[in-house]
Amino acid sequence: MKKILLIGATGTVGSAVAQQLGERHQVIRVGRRGGDHQVDITDAGSVDRLFAAVGRVDAIVSTTGQLHFGPLADTTPDQFAIGLHDKLLGQVRLALVGQHHLNDGGSITLTTGIVAQEPIAQGANATTVNAALEGFVQAAAIELQRGLRINAVSPSVLTESWAGYGPFFPGFEPVPAARVALAYQRAVDGAQNGRVYRVW
Amino acid sequence: MKKILLIGATGTVGSAVAQQLGERHQVIRVGRRGGDHQVDITDAGSVDRLFAAVGRVDAIVSTTGQLHFGPLADTTPDQFAIGLHDKLLGQVRLALVGQHHLNDGGSITLTTGIVAQEPIAQGANATTVNAALEGFVQAAAIELQRGLRINAVSPSVLTESWAGYGPFFPGFEPVPAARVALAYQRAVDGAQNGRVYRVW
Repeated sequence: MKKILLIGATGTVGSAVAQQLGERHQVIRVGRRGGDHQVDITDAGSVDRLFAAVGRVDAIVSTTGQLHFGPLADTTPDQFAIGLHDKLLGQVRLALVGQHHLNDGGSITLTTGIVAQEPIAQGANATTVNAALEGFVQAAAIELQRGLRINAVSPSVLTESWAGYGPFFPGFEPVPAARVALAYQRAVDGAQNGRVYRVW
Repeated sequence: MKKILLIGATGTVGSAVAQQLGERHQVIRVGRRGGDHQVDITDAGSVDRLFAAVGRVDAIVSTTGQLHFGPLADTTPDQFAIGLHDKLLGQVRLALVGQHHLNDGGSITLTTGIVAQEPIAQGANATTVNAALEGFVQAAAIELQRGLRINAVSPSVLTESWAGYGPFFPGFEPVPAARVALAYQRAVDGAQNGRVYRVW
């Protein structure tokens, strides 16, 4: 049984991951407001306090991060920076800080998304951030020490979110969160490193 | 003859691009300290003043941007943010602001780099930022209006920089800046959109 720190545990994907991984592991559920612990991944002090509170873990799983959506012609650099600070640097922070709080052979699993390769209108920030995270995972994988691994899961739009987001993803195939959750288990309980598991 | 705004004109790549594009176009050379105009791409006011000073242009070419290099185990989120704010958001800012200062049919050309696909030790920030920029170019390309185009050039290590950077790129093939400059001309004088021109 592994001790797994799950950040974003109260979201749609995170809830499914908590259920899937909870079948055989100890899952510490972290949310922005709910969960066993709270964290703001854009705040260095908040992330430091989280790791100090939970102690060493075997896996860090992140299913969280905000992006900016809107027409390119109206997007300001400040709006664009939202995704860079939250979903991108927030998850990178969990990895950079978290590498020092993992037991030998532990793993980090981050979340990207289908728009990394399949851009949509109003989604330039999302494509940029997701592509960045996939680059980070591939680069960090060759430098991690003590047998640590890092991977990412790239889901398509969730079936559970289709009512709200479907119009932005014409012709995309939604996937149930429970199926996306399997990819996180492949990352945590598998042996690969530097992989992006696409669920689409 | 096009009116081309070249940001990073005093660098190794930028100098070669200025020479290549200057054969048939008017090139406005912009540097951080040198050139016809000065700009700090991390500063919103500085970028606004640049565009106000030069008026409408037919092409924006960026060959600039700082990154952080260092071992992953020692990298802090604040160090990582250097590349996000400078080479990534700085170039995105030139594109987001610049789209409104381009003549119809104009183009934007940004700079990424070979480590987007070929990670090196100590280069996680560079891989992340370059991959992000390639995502941005592909996403922005489908939303630009008035016939505007956006592309990127991804150079390998420069022959001119090989003495200093070669040890970080074992087995990589350096390319002369003059050859890299040709790709910028393909982007500016060609018709493609959303392309990453790899010079490696």
